[in-house]
Amino acid sequence: MQYRHIGSRLFVKLERGEEVLETLTSLCREHHIRSASFCGIGAVRGTELGYYDLETFSYSTRVFPEIFELVSLLGNVALVDGEPFVHAHASLADRELIQVGGHLVRATVAVTVEIFIDCCESTVERVLDPEVKLKLLKLDTSDS
Amino acid sequence: MQYRHIGSRLFVKLERGEEVLETLTSLCREHHIRSASFCGIGAVRGTELGYYDLETFSYSTRVFPEIFELVSLLGNVALVDGEPFVHAHASLADRELIQVGGHLVRATVAVTVEIFIDCCESTVERVLDPEVKLKLLKLDTSDS
Amino acid sequence: MQYRHIGSRLFVKLERGEEVLETLTSLCREHHIRSASFCGIGAVRGTELGYYDLETFSYSTRVFPEIFELVSLLGNVALVDGEPFVHAHASLADRELIQVGGHLVRATVAVTVEIFIDCCESTVERVLDPEVKLKLLKLDTSDS
Repeated sequence: MQYRHIGSRLFVKLERGEEVLETLTSLCREHHIRSASFCGIGAVRGTELGYYDLETFSYSTRVFPEIFELVSLLGNVALVDGEPFVHAHASLADRELIQVGGHLVRATVAVTVEIFIDCCESTVERVLDPEVKLKLLKLDTSDS
Repeated sequence: MQYRHIGSRLFVKLERGEEVLETLTSLCREHHIRSASFCGIGAVRGTELGYYDLETFSYSTRVFPEIFELVSLLGNVALVDGEPFVHAHASLADRELIQVGGHLVRATVAVTVEIFIDCCESTVERVLDPEVKLKLLKLDTSDS
Repeated sequence: MQYRHIGSRLFVKLERGEEVLETLTSLCREHHIRSASFCGIGAVRGTELGYYDLETFSYSTRVFPEIFELVSLLGNVALVDGEPFVHAHASLADRELIQVGGHLVRATVAVTVEIFIDCCESTVERVLDPEVKLKLLKLDTSDS
């Protein structure tokens, strides 16, 4: 991973072979990021995408081993149990430019992944929502 | 809806059952937002997506009643007749992770929708473009 | 093209018939942009999308002549040989709302394209990576 800190933004280049979510999470931990958004593009392989099933309260997932263009990586960072947690959705395109997408479970950088992280000076947490059994944002409608 | 105001950004969590565009529009009205961009992810149901047909000057739309992952929600806010107007495009993924996308007409939050709105201190308006019969941005190439 | 400069952001409206990447590159050159991210939506025609093939070190591309909704345009700007270079990925949706996506090679504005560019006060360069034969970001992990 390479990055440049520019004001409150991080311009990040993930390197071939790095796992996207782990590397982003490490970066956020190292920089004490407590809330952020990010968007990125690139190319990945070994990607696992998920669909959250409200009947089983679990992600049904598929793995795409081949190299795909990462057409869109969007997400945010908030704290879970005091540690940065990265929530990301991704769109991929194969050699025929057909797309698949969903909740990003994991992906390995195939060529490069280029991400801008916009960091916020605010502590945002995720807490378990018992109804959907997921850790959702807790934002309490405050102005700060 | 919950939100946190962080500097010029709004970190927003839409709640189950809320209509995405109506809720965003209300939030923009309440906060006097006159121009902004936003991006978000989540899961929605009862989504209507459109394709603008330049021959009929109208959107041809399809409704997707099931729950889909909201892989990408991108858009902007500007004023139409003095009121905030939200223009959004969305990518959805179904249980098989197959994607559909287009102009977002409406969507209801199924699990959660997490959005960052980046607000601008500038009044941007949309005005009717008689050639395409849509209200397009009027930006007049000024530096402010 | 029309635009509004709002702080460090450019809110841009591309006009019918303009080529997306050329117009964005001109704007970046004119405004001496050395690093930026952007996201946008709209409708385009004559779009060429690519998939980078690591076996041939070249993009295999397809052209989509018809009008498509531009569901997502994400990318960044950095310098190549001292000049702004725009790297973008795009998702398109056809009349049936089926999506295709990939590395954006070219696209012509069909109805409108609305983009927010977030400019950074930092010089970021792309340099040739001999292993993948692409010009990749050089970010050197500095805090500035």
